[in-house]
Amino acid sequence: MASTITLAEYLGRRLRQAGVGHLFGVPGDFNLTLLDHLTQVPGLAWVGSPNELGAGYAADAYARSRGLAVLVTTYGVGELSALNAVAGSAAEDVPVVHIAGSPSTSAVAARRLVHHTLADGEFGRFSRAYAEVTVHQETVTADRATAQIDAALAAAMINRKPVYLSIPMDLATLPVDPAPLANPLTGASDPAAFAAALKPLIDAAERPVIVAGHLVSRFGAADLTAVGVPIVTTLAAKGVIDADDPLSYGDYAGTMVDQDTADLVGRADLVIELGTVATDVLSGFFTHRPVDDQVVTVGATAATIGVDEVYPVHFADAVHVLVELLSAKRFVLPQRAPKLAVPAPAPDAPLTQAALWQTVQGWLPAGTAVLADTGTSFWGAVSLTFPADTVFVAQPIWNSIGYALPAVLGQGLAEPERRPVLFIGDGAAQMTVQELSTIAAAGINPIIVLLNNEGYTIERALQSPDAGYNDVAAWEWGTLVEGFAGPKADYRRAHTAAELRHALEAAAEATHTLCFVEVVLDRYDAPPLLRVLAERNGADQT
Amino acid sequence: MASTITLAEYLGRRLRQAGVGHLFGVPGDFNLTLLDHLTQVPGLAWVGSPNELGAGYAADAYARSRGLAVLVTTYGVGELSALNAVAGSAAEDVPVVHIAGSPSTSAVAARRLVHHTLADGEFGRFSRAYAEVTVHQETVTADRATAQIDAALAAAMINRKPVYLSIPMDLATLPVDPAPLANPLTGASDPAAFAAALKPLIDAAERPVIVAGHLVSRFGAADLTAVGVPIVTTLAAKGVIDADDPLSYGDYAGTMVDQDTADLVGRADLVIELGTVATDVLSGFFTHRPVDDQVVTVGATAATIGVDEVYPVHFADAVHVLVELLSAKRFVLPQRAPKLAVPAPAPDAPLTQAALWQTVQGWLPAGTAVLADTGTSFWGAVSLTFPADTVFVAQPIWNSIGYALPAVLGQGLAEPERRPVLFIGDGAAQMTVQELSTIAAAGINPIIVLLNNEGYTIERALQSPDAGYNDVAAWEWGTLVEGFAGPKADYRRAHTAAELRHALEAAAEATHTLCFVEVVLDRYDAPPLLRVLAERNGADQT
Repeated sequence: MASTITLAEYLGRRLRQAGVGHLFGVPGDFNLTLLDHLTQVPGLAWVGSPNELGAGYAADAYARSRGLAVLVTTYGVGELSALNAVAGSAAEDVPVVHIAGSPSTSAVAARRLVHHTLADGEFGRFSRAYAEVTVHQETVTADRATAQIDAALAAAMINRKPVYLSIPMDLATLPVDPAPLANPLTGASDPAAFAAALKPLIDAAERPVIVAGHLVSRFGAADLTAVGVPIVTTLAAKGVIDADDPLSYGDYAGTMVDQDTADLVGRADLVIELGTVATDVLSGFFTHRPVDDQVVTVGATAATIGVDEVYPVHFADAVHVLVELLSAKRFVLPQRAPKLAVPAPAPDAPLTQAALWQTVQGWLPAGTAVLADTGTSFWGAVSLTFPADTVFVAQPIWNSIGYALPAVLGQGLAEPERRPVLFIGDGAAQMTVQELSTIAAAGINPIIVLLNNEGYTIERALQSPDAGYNDVAAWEWGTLVEGFAGPKADYRRAHTAAELRHALEAAAEATHTLCFVEVVLDRYDAPPLLRVLAERNGADQT
Repeated sequence: MASTITLAEYLGRRLRQAGVGHLFGVPGDFNLTLLDHLTQVPGLAWVGSPNELGAGYAADAYARSRGLAVLVTTYGVGELSALNAVAGSAAEDVPVVHIAGSPSTSAVAARRLVHHTLADGEFGRFSRAYAEVTVHQETVTADRATAQIDAALAAAMINRKPVYLSIPMDLATLPVDPAPLANPLTGASDPAAFAAALKPLIDAAERPVIVAGHLVSRFGAADLTAVGVPIVTTLAAKGVIDADDPLSYGDYAGTMVDQDTADLVGRADLVIELGTVATDVLSGFFTHRPVDDQVVTVGATAATIGVDEVYPVHFADAVHVLVELLSAKRFVLPQRAPKLAVPAPAPDAPLTQAALWQTVQGWLPAGTAVLADTGTSFWGAVSLTFPADTVFVAQPIWNSIGYALPAVLGQGLAEPERRPVLFIGDGAAQMTVQELSTIAAAGINPIIVLLNNEGYTIERALQSPDAGYNDVAAWEWGTLVEGFAGPKADYRRAHTAAELRHALEAAAEATHTLCFVEVVLDRYDAPPLLRVLAERNGADQT
């Protein structure tokens, strides 16, 4: 080879090609050499977090928007703390490259009892743990390094899944041939066979419907609204089509949130399940239409016609086929259900969950990113009709509380022009609260609405409402916001709808300020949808 | 069976037999039924933490003192967040029973796509990840439930290692026969064969030495000082023998911290390695005396004479054999090195690491628990001569920063009469800071010394001192302490030795107050031992 570059530079340039501009993570002695070189690659900025779980959640949100994200941790102590976040990326189909700095090849070969191991000379434990939650794993070796990096990155992007890349500390500066950088990262996709099989179904269809799932937002949904077919969205894909688009027919979660969408899907003679997954929550506890001969299911790397006719086609290619075939035909659009007016809450009564979400509905501006943590926040947020151009970030498949606060960091850095609006409960925020400081340090100015109901109200709704284990310690949130984000952050507390409305309006004005609104709620109060969920969950478990 | 009890009650009564009085963890929908019944067992108190990592660290510290601890999490999202803590318990030989509530047996049998899974019908992923870091795993089944619980608990106690116990939500109330509760949990141990093999070595020995390792503190070290043999301690066992005991000969970490102890071990004609492990840090980067024919190694479940003569004997039984054989003989004790007087620091100059630890040495009262996080805190703390009856809690094998703050919770609850004194850096404290609120809520009143050097100084010492990734966001610590622990907590900031001395003395007086002392240090300053470590670590990695 004529001239070489370091392995770290190769990796960095590959990441830049994929649109990555930020590296999330925590430094540790096994990744320092890698970081020294990776942070020298133009266009890659380091974003250190207080801990790895927060960094992993931030990377997840960044990848949802950018199409790829990087999480850098150290061996053992670092990587294991991020496992929950990376498993979440797996469940939610988010392409995160988890790069773990690892002990030197010589230490591994000699089975040395180095720190950050179980002191037994065994170095494969943590990559095996990661094999359970990632779609591809590589521990880089000197002779195959660039091919391994390319394979991992391609697997992440094609499958929209997390991958694991372990880089021994001595290989970070390995000289490698930069020539492969000229080749794009691709995989096998055969849209023609899928198109041929699909055409007769579309020709025969009169009442087709598209069910847009979370993969639509992962891969992007540019031309879906050009096809003239009714579109319903799962709760994981809320916001991928504007609510006032003529093709938008509302949210579909079996019969749980909207009987009209359930009927529309039930009566359709062609259902295109576009990147959906029928988990308990998303299927309305398995009340969705099951797959039959009139259902086409499009996944990341394959599309299936009916129950088992599988075609190897990448998601973007499959969408292209669908758009082309559907656009060639004109369908009669069914009547849309009229929108119900949201009542105005009583301004001065103590805030209820109902009044909270009514107030938010009346205020929420267009063009934001709405982030909602698991629990009452999620069930309230999905009951909203989003204004135009709203990005929705949540975790309805994995449901790990604490996710959405660090997600503000990732979303904010990925799309700096879009203001994040976070809804999160106090129990969830206690999980990852320190990420407030990273958000402030990064100059992101979100509006954070903290639902303070003194604990895990979703669990109170599910079972044992008065169990002490659902209570959390009382925190002085205003004091903590100042401690983490500095005196310039704006903190307000709202007990009534009028106070909340005032606080939200002030926050919307203060675009250059981190605004934190603590909303005081009754510990047993829950959004109506969560009550329905609790009933169905109980019935499902017995 | 005449009368039955619930599985949860069986488990709870077994835990009480083992001395467990507190349950650490975070509730989640798959463990709620278990918690409802477990918390009804008399003597078991629930201690909820803001997140699972903190709960796992707290359980680890509790187990070190009590001999067993319990960590309760929920499936997937909960258990994975604790994996780093449980791996630390594995590395450091700490018996933690990790109980994960899991989906119902019917959901698993039907491969339902429930939340907290990867939405692929596969339920074994997380227990397989845990198999990498625990010595025993059980997913409880209806037909073998009590035997599985007993096997897991026995494995934890006998091996002094963490175990994993997954309890499907529908089996928490399974009726079981309580009869096995009458049987103690034991394993096979054959002290007689070990004693017979050991006797000739002891008969021949003139210059024996005991190297006390971390397993001595895990199993308890009651009668070691009765044997009339010089004892040196590894850095993981500091404090297991009082420094002024006539048999105490100091700290042994190869040649790294004390050449006198290295010489003592090197010249010995019988070395008894009592629960030690020769990791990089503990062996002074492999400058320890290697195992030869004159070395006896005692582990949790086996003792080894020389390189490979293995006897299946439990630690406590092996110690009993040793004490009996050694006490029957009288050895001439070698001269002890004179103690060097610690100089008094200049009272009004800006605090250095040297002055910090000199001040602590002059102040530290007897009878505390000293907890030191990884980094400058650890290397400063091990340079101290501890006063009488000092318990030392640290993680020199696993070295996960952020461990020691939640460890205050576990240690404080395990031994309420012993005041915890924590030394922790700002980078480490940012990892797990929210556990301050649990510590305050539990009524523990530790003295917390925060070493604020604006980031990861141990990494600055190892490599790239000016790398931006070693900086952490500046926090207002006084404000945060109030936000987490309430206005009654006492916060002070020290810039000089005189201010530090004053703050520590005030903290010692305020026994009913959580006292937090922020110590302002230069970002590049490190204890002398850390400099030595950095040099040896660098040499070891090339």
